[in-house]
Amino acid sequence: MTDKLWGGRFAEDITQEVLDYTLTVDVDERLVFADLWQDLAHMLMLGVRGIVTGEVAQAVLGSLLRLWERAERGELRLRPELEDVHFNLEQQVIEELGRERGGHLQTARSRNDQVSTDTRMYLRRIQLDAVAANLDLIGELLAFPETDLLAILPGYTHSQAAQPISVAFWKSAHASMLLRDVRRLRGAFERTDECPLGACALAGTSFPLDRELTARLLGFGGVLSHALDATSARDYLIESAAAFAIGGNNLSRMAEEIVMWSGHEYRLVEVADAYATGSSIMPQKKNPVVAELARGRAGRTAGTLVQLLTMAKGVTLGYSCDLQEDKPYLWHAIDAYLSTLRIVAGQTRGLRFDGARGEQLCWDNFSTATELANHLVTAHGLPFREAHHVSGALVAALLKRGATLRDTAAAAEILGELGHPVDEPVLARLFAPAAAVSGYTSPGGTSPRSVTAVRAELSSAAEAHAAWLGGARRRLRDAQDATFAAARDVAAGAGIAKALDRIAPSLNGEL
Amino acid sequence: MTDKLWGGRFAEDITQEVLDYTLTVDVDERLVFADLWQDLAHMLMLGVRGIVTGEVAQAVLGSLLRLWERAERGELRLRPELEDVHFNLEQQVIEELGRERGGHLQTARSRNDQVSTDTRMYLRRIQLDAVAANLDLIGELLAFPETDLLAILPGYTHSQAAQPISVAFWKSAHASMLLRDVRRLRGAFERTDECPLGACALAGTSFPLDRELTARLLGFGGVLSHALDATSARDYLIESAAAFAIGGNNLSRMAEEIVMWSGHEYRLVEVADAYATGSSIMPQKKNPVVAELARGRAGRTAGTLVQLLTMAKGVTLGYSCDLQEDKPYLWHAIDAYLSTLRIVAGQTRGLRFDGARGEQLCWDNFSTATELANHLVTAHGLPFREAHHVSGALVAALLKRGATLRDTAAAAEILGELGHPVDEPVLARLFAPAAAVSGYTSPGGTSPRSVTAVRAELSSAAEAHAAWLGGARRRLRDAQDATFAAARDVAAGAGIAKALDRIAPSLNGEL
Amino acid sequence: MTDKLWGGRFAEDITQEVLDYTLTVDVDERLVFADLWQDLAHMLMLGVRGIVTGEVAQAVLGSLLRLWERAERGELRLRPELEDVHFNLEQQVIEELGRERGGHLQTARSRNDQVSTDTRMYLRRIQLDAVAANLDLIGELLAFPETDLLAILPGYTHSQAAQPISVAFWKSAHASMLLRDVRRLRGAFERTDECPLGACALAGTSFPLDRELTARLLGFGGVLSHALDATSARDYLIESAAAFAIGGNNLSRMAEEIVMWSGHEYRLVEVADAYATGSSIMPQKKNPVVAELARGRAGRTAGTLVQLLTMAKGVTLGYSCDLQEDKPYLWHAIDAYLSTLRIVAGQTRGLRFDGARGEQLCWDNFSTATELANHLVTAHGLPFREAHHVSGALVAALLKRGATLRDTAAAAEILGELGHPVDEPVLARLFAPAAAVSGYTSPGGTSPRSVTAVRAELSSAAEAHAAWLGGARRRLRDAQDATFAAARDVAAGAGIAKALDRIAPSLNGEL
Amino acid sequence: MTDKLWGGRFAEDITQEVLDYTLTVDVDERLVFADLWQDLAHMLMLGVRGIVTGEVAQAVLGSLLRLWERAERGELRLRPELEDVHFNLEQQVIEELGRERGGHLQTARSRNDQVSTDTRMYLRRIQLDAVAANLDLIGELLAFPETDLLAILPGYTHSQAAQPISVAFWKSAHASMLLRDVRRLRGAFERTDECPLGACALAGTSFPLDRELTARLLGFGGVLSHALDATSARDYLIESAAAFAIGGNNLSRMAEEIVMWSGHEYRLVEVADAYATGSSIMPQKKNPVVAELARGRAGRTAGTLVQLLTMAKGVTLGYSCDLQEDKPYLWHAIDAYLSTLRIVAGQTRGLRFDGARGEQLCWDNFSTATELANHLVTAHGLPFREAHHVSGALVAALLKRGATLRDTAAAAEILGELGHPVDEPVLARLFAPAAAVSGYTSPGGTSPRSVTAVRAELSSAAEAHAAWLGGARRRLRDAQDATFAAARDVAAGAGIAKALDRIAPSLNGEL
Repeated sequence: MTDKLWGGRFAEDITQEVLDYTLTVDVDERLVFADLWQDLAHMLMLGVRGIVTGEVAQAVLGSLLRLWERAERGELRLRPELEDVHFNLEQQVIEELGRERGGHLQTARSRNDQVSTDTRMYLRRIQLDAVAANLDLIGELLAFPETDLLAILPGYTHSQAAQPISVAFWKSAHASMLLRDVRRLRGAFERTDECPLGACALAGTSFPLDRELTARLLGFGGVLSHALDATSARDYLIESAAAFAIGGNNLSRMAEEIVMWSGHEYRLVEVADAYATGSSIMPQKKNPVVAELARGRAGRTAGTLVQLLTMAKGVTLGYSCDLQEDKPYLWHAIDAYLSTLRIVAGQTRGLRFDGARGEQLCWDNFSTATELANHLVTAHGLPFREAHHVSGALVAALLKRGATLRDTAAAAEILGELGHPVDEPVLARLFAPAAAVSGYTSPGGTSPRSVTAVRAELSSAAEAHAAWLGGARRRLRDAQDATFAAARDVAAGAGIAKALDRIAPSLNGEL
Repeated sequence: MTDKLWGGRFAEDITQEVLDYTLTVDVDERLVFADLWQDLAHMLMLGVRGIVTGEVAQAVLGSLLRLWERAERGELRLRPELEDVHFNLEQQVIEELGRERGGHLQTARSRNDQVSTDTRMYLRRIQLDAVAANLDLIGELLAFPETDLLAILPGYTHSQAAQPISVAFWKSAHASMLLRDVRRLRGAFERTDECPLGACALAGTSFPLDRELTARLLGFGGVLSHALDATSARDYLIESAAAFAIGGNNLSRMAEEIVMWSGHEYRLVEVADAYATGSSIMPQKKNPVVAELARGRAGRTAGTLVQLLTMAKGVTLGYSCDLQEDKPYLWHAIDAYLSTLRIVAGQTRGLRFDGARGEQLCWDNFSTATELANHLVTAHGLPFREAHHVSGALVAALLKRGATLRDTAAAAEILGELGHPVDEPVLARLFAPAAAVSGYTSPGGTSPRSVTAVRAELSSAAEAHAAWLGGARRRLRDAQDATFAAARDVAAGAGIAKALDRIAPSLNGEL
Repeated sequence: MTDKLWGGRFAEDITQEVLDYTLTVDVDERLVFADLWQDLAHMLMLGVRGIVTGEVAQAVLGSLLRLWERAERGELRLRPELEDVHFNLEQQVIEELGRERGGHLQTARSRNDQVSTDTRMYLRRIQLDAVAANLDLIGELLAFPETDLLAILPGYTHSQAAQPISVAFWKSAHASMLLRDVRRLRGAFERTDECPLGACALAGTSFPLDRELTARLLGFGGVLSHALDATSARDYLIESAAAFAIGGNNLSRMAEEIVMWSGHEYRLVEVADAYATGSSIMPQKKNPVVAELARGRAGRTAGTLVQLLTMAKGVTLGYSCDLQEDKPYLWHAIDAYLSTLRIVAGQTRGLRFDGARGEQLCWDNFSTATELANHLVTAHGLPFREAHHVSGALVAALLKRGATLRDTAAAAEILGELGHPVDEPVLARLFAPAAAVSGYTSPGGTSPRSVTAVRAELSSAAEAHAAWLGGARRRLRDAQDATFAAARDVAAGAGIAKALDRIAPSLNGEL
Repeated sequence: MTDKLWGGRFAEDITQEVLDYTLTVDVDERLVFADLWQDLAHMLMLGVRGIVTGEVAQAVLGSLLRLWERAERGELRLRPELEDVHFNLEQQVIEELGRERGGHLQTARSRNDQVSTDTRMYLRRIQLDAVAANLDLIGELLAFPETDLLAILPGYTHSQAAQPISVAFWKSAHASMLLRDVRRLRGAFERTDECPLGACALAGTSFPLDRELTARLLGFGGVLSHALDATSARDYLIESAAAFAIGGNNLSRMAEEIVMWSGHEYRLVEVADAYATGSSIMPQKKNPVVAELARGRAGRTAGTLVQLLTMAKGVTLGYSCDLQEDKPYLWHAIDAYLSTLRIVAGQTRGLRFDGARGEQLCWDNFSTATELANHLVTAHGLPFREAHHVSGALVAALLKRGATLRDTAAAAEILGELGHPVDEPVLARLFAPAAAVSGYTSPGGTSPRSVTAVRAELSSAAEAHAAWLGGARRRLRDAQDATFAAARDVAAGAGIAKALDRIAPSLNGEL
């Protein structure tokens, strides 16, 4: 018979190789605090429901609180030979209190509901951190100075300059996009914020559990009732990985723009020195390495998503070890995504755009030719399709002469020949990039007025998200405080009933 | 100069090979009705805002209505040499009305906002269809007869029988899981249901658009204001693909269970003949091919998700042709996901479970040994960890004798030797799978009471989703009706103002 | 009893919905010719081994040859209600000849080995086509004129100009990279080019098959002996999908360069008009749409790879319907990859590089600063790390003055101040991009001499691949000719023995 | 000016956050020995070509050898503030020798070619380890005892028992499959085993390098000539990741079989206790956790492949930081793949199959009905399609009676009624699973004769691979020995020429 906690029926122990292959203590390091909090809540509930005696509850809660303090001091080490965080902590309690009292901790619980509860507790915090990091980045993007409203950039389609836009328009575009990442993260949070504790191995239990109580003590928004679903579901974290992957992808698009635009050929933006490095052999280089890495790390979030989808595909309900593979790559994706969000916020703060260069590129690229087409529609009554052809013919003729829209005299002459004369001053006004930017006054357009309106709309959405975030974080903190207060009371001998009275207020209201 | 609508400045035409490589008419077939509806709404708005004359609006709307009728009769063919659905329809209008009037259709619009609007219109309908198909399947799963509450299945962990559960418990587990797919689809719908029309090429326009009006006429829940974001965003459809992939993955898990359990070794379930096929060489086979394909098609949804993430990675804002790759694989994923949902609903209806076989497997597999452990905790006051060891020792001893838990005499004898005597009748009760199922009365557990409660909870959630679905579909239908009514009025010469009066009621309320 | 060929034991037929869900006739269209060729070879072998009578062989071969002719005339339609290509063709033979004779076709064969054989026959041809298309593109890349050896481009690292290179160097870099794609495709071909026919359902058969004979008649390089592996393996086509995905990815990198470099900001290259399109609203644009799509379509090949990996994950050996999912997305990936290879070859032929612009960008970006560092090492004996610092200090000082390396007077002055005087004429020589290009004479470097040597090396490798390709294609053609010649002889009444004598020569030699 | 080795031109240092985001020292730990070996070879070559003086070569080689000794003693720590392994080691040399001598190490080299060389050196060793681990596992699979040739298993299609096979047949099937993984790994090795050193930053150099010499000293099979390709290529490691992913997928298929078959319902196989664990709450369980994890870890290899494809997509040639993302997930995939291969070999050794149970399942499932069909073809001259129908009708009739093929009397009676009488003793012979297994004598079939022949074929292929593996490993070892011998000679003052004389023999022959 082996020493394993589950070892009742085995003749032969697993080898070191098998232990190494199956253990999760390294991955579980991140779950220690969640697991201890959960242990406290679970033991409190067992006490409340009389499933363990008051004496056992007092002893075990005391032991757990001491473990928490050791963990906080960084003195709690997980031992690989005990497989995972759950066995490690239970074993510590048993070693301190003896099996007589410590052996009660795992009553009416299984590692199956336990690990899912831990993972959700950790993940929901990460989701909130990701919402916060997105809101910070959105804040940076929307905190543009008024001058950005008229600082010109070429708007590109097909990587060709198409129409002039403003720096503020570009920044707010990314803010607009990132707000959807926030919404997706909130959706993922909703599906994570449901408590599986009490599902036990897969079918529930005959012990008279109070699942609402543990859910509340752990700060969950609700109970995930169905025990088989609660222990088997992994879709909620694949959804998180998808939110990270889509977010990482969105960041990769901004990163691509920063990398390209900070090159000499574009020269539209410069990143702060702190976000660039040099070359060991080419001393003239200033490489936007943070942006390059932000772009490249979209691979990690995408790869993790695929890892999880592949892992869960075709796995029957009920716990299988495949499902233990739900964490390692997810941890990597979390680190990649959060660190990228945060560093990109800093990078954004330090971006220096060159509006004059932007304006020059707009002139060089006929980027206001559409304005002529629109003018021919509005002022000359041409059908748009016709006006578009005239405009195109003008550009072709100018290109032939090696001229640009700056050459209003040539343009006027050509338009006359085409049978659609327009006065040179009108052309000068139509073709000026700054005028075009100011003219795109449709809702959501690049004109200062439109961008200002959009900024207000986006800021207001961001504020609503921030308020929600504050509430969600407060809920977690309050629940943790309540759990610890009650646990300390009981450990100090106060009796379960009294402890619960104390935390009752925080448990009010609809779950 | 080429014949292309955009051909103003090109000396050389593209070759057939290039046309084939770039065209999207095959993919665009699904967008014809969305594009026509959009054309109608756009032209109505142009008329309302005086951007085109009433006479032009009347003519173009009439032409578009005639195209719609042809499309409904299946007589509208897209011509590959016209690249995409947008040029095709515009060209038809121009051919009928001449460029003088037909040339006004594309005023204040670009293919960039147009295609994104079409795609969202099509996709939101699919998302609603997917919600509906999920709800149908959930309905099938929750419509279990009362007898299913006590029909026994082994609950598996690690593909080993672990604890007895009921058929109703298993069915409701999948319903519980699928309800999250519904919620994810609703999240994806929210991000899709925003109207990009009016963003034009990327920067808005100087024409005095009414973007709220077109959004309402097209039944959208709101306007996606930012023009650059509106034309560049693809995250909303990657999110949809993620919802499909996660849903497909969830279905693959049920499919794996059906495939395994319908095999002779399990014999827990049989699919209806209509969902199975035979073998061309082994006449005895009844192959659950629908379940196998449902499992395998999770590959299509996962593959599509990766296709989209890869495609969009690092693409700068503003339209690039890369983004045209947002549709072909998505169409495949849609077809795979919807058809799987629908066929699995039918398959579920025809499943015949064998509870007697399930009970036998539970007996054979010591699946109620936990009950003894719980009993030793509850009745003998043993710590759970100790009780677990005793239980394990009993199983080991029985296995050695080639006995099972059915041998209560042997079990009683062994327990006596282990120092934890339990009366044989008690053991008989503890070990009976049906009794165990009835005993798991914790919330979300497998007992009839718990499952009945969970079913009520899940049904209520499903009903709320169904009500939402009805509302969303009604909104789309009302908007379409309103658009067509107004367009017909104008085409019939009623004048724009009058037409709008008529549709005003449907446009009331907060967008 | 149903009408299905396998319907012996079924009470209820599958519904139309299930038929639609399971059928593969649309996907199988591409396998018609392979299946017919296989049928011929299989029937010839059955005849040779006396498993069917000469009379049966004569009748069936005749029927199959008539089917082939109908297929060639485009008159052979697969009927969905017959599920797949195999049942369709067998049914046609039975309808023509009656079950008495036609019913022998499927003797000693199963759809399991049959479909795998078909797929391999189709796929190996695609792999050869992909090798050919790669070699064509490599040929285009290596067919650069001598002037390309000195036409300057900036070599980029971190999207910043780093060192001057030549156009020829850039072209040959992609040729060098693509040659590895060729090698990977040959590897995939090797694993595909093994004949599973004769594996039957999964375990072989008691009929006295001659698997070598069918393998030879079908032009395979060898027999895949193990029957269970032969029917279960899908790794060979996942490997193909991986080769396509890696190839697609390599092409996406070239595409990114073409898109960026053809923009106004770079202006390093222009694609031929035939490979670009205009804009419907911005008449000045020339969009490199082929390159954009080539970049975006890397998503399809990557997505297909994931679809296949997901599908095959965890599928037990022996045929399951999951494995039928091995074709649809693979067909899409094939189409995307082959068409991209071919169109990029045409695009490459039409590229016009601007070496003068390249040289200017090199000057502007201090791209020859390394040359000074190397000079300080070689001529002044400085340690490289020291020389690098001096060079960096020079660039920093020049940047401060708003100067570039063109300002040799300023450079000489600064170097003097730094304590490392270099004469101005020496600097002028060191800093000239063309001189630097000529100076990188290390093997594989950008100097004309090095590039010419590398071209010879790459061309020689390409020729060896082309020779191999010719041989492989010849083998397939010869085998097909031999099969048809023998089949026609037998159908005409010549007798099996005589027919085999005729094809014997082509069957000689080691398999 | 910062302290960075490349810091010549920067005003502001990067922050700690940026350093953390960009550093690679943790990932580079695995490259220390490769980097030092490379440093030695590079410095030897610089000495040989007179690019550094003999005195410098002597000093630097001595310093490097001392670093190697420290690394071997585990005393060499990489400092994060020095970014990567290359700067760390160079800095150590400079700190020991001063910039005057230590500053020569990086002459005529860049981190771009250096890191690619390191990665290839590490990866090729992993590829060889993976070949070795596959060959070990194949060896276990093919080392079946003779009794396995007649030990019966049901062969499954559609997870339904189809035809009887032998344990030996099943084992050799996986061996056959894994041999393709070996071939793929060899292909990946071929593309990895090419030396990029000397490509420098991207364009080669003007120093008179001897790239053949360094390639030989580093044990490479050849030089990857083209400098731009050499520094930019990542396809070779995506190919490796693909080989790992396909291999991981193949292992997942075997794992699925082990998991299912070791369940009570199948009871076909039992894993050794060392490869299973128990349950913390259900004492009767023996969970095949190693197989479950092997199945689940296919997600890691697939996820890594996608991470790499995503990362490299659309990255222009020349080094970008995106490419630094080529290692972290690849390291994870390597660990997952190698450890799975090794542990599965051990698990395979301990598998205990139950042939009697297999035979029983074959009887229960009509798995020899095909034999009757074949008999009707052979002995009665029925067309196969007809014989198949008769066979199917028999099974249907037996099922109706609740009988199996064991009931030969009933079978004989039914066949008589169907008009195809077969004697009962013949039926008894036809229907016996063991007889069927023995009868499938076609090449590659499940008969002992066929399996023995296939085993010989597979073993012979495995031996050829093992011989190749030995040669490849010997080449690496010899090259390393030669490099160190020469370096020690020079460090001891022997002079470059003499040192080279000593290593000349190992440098002979075609590269």
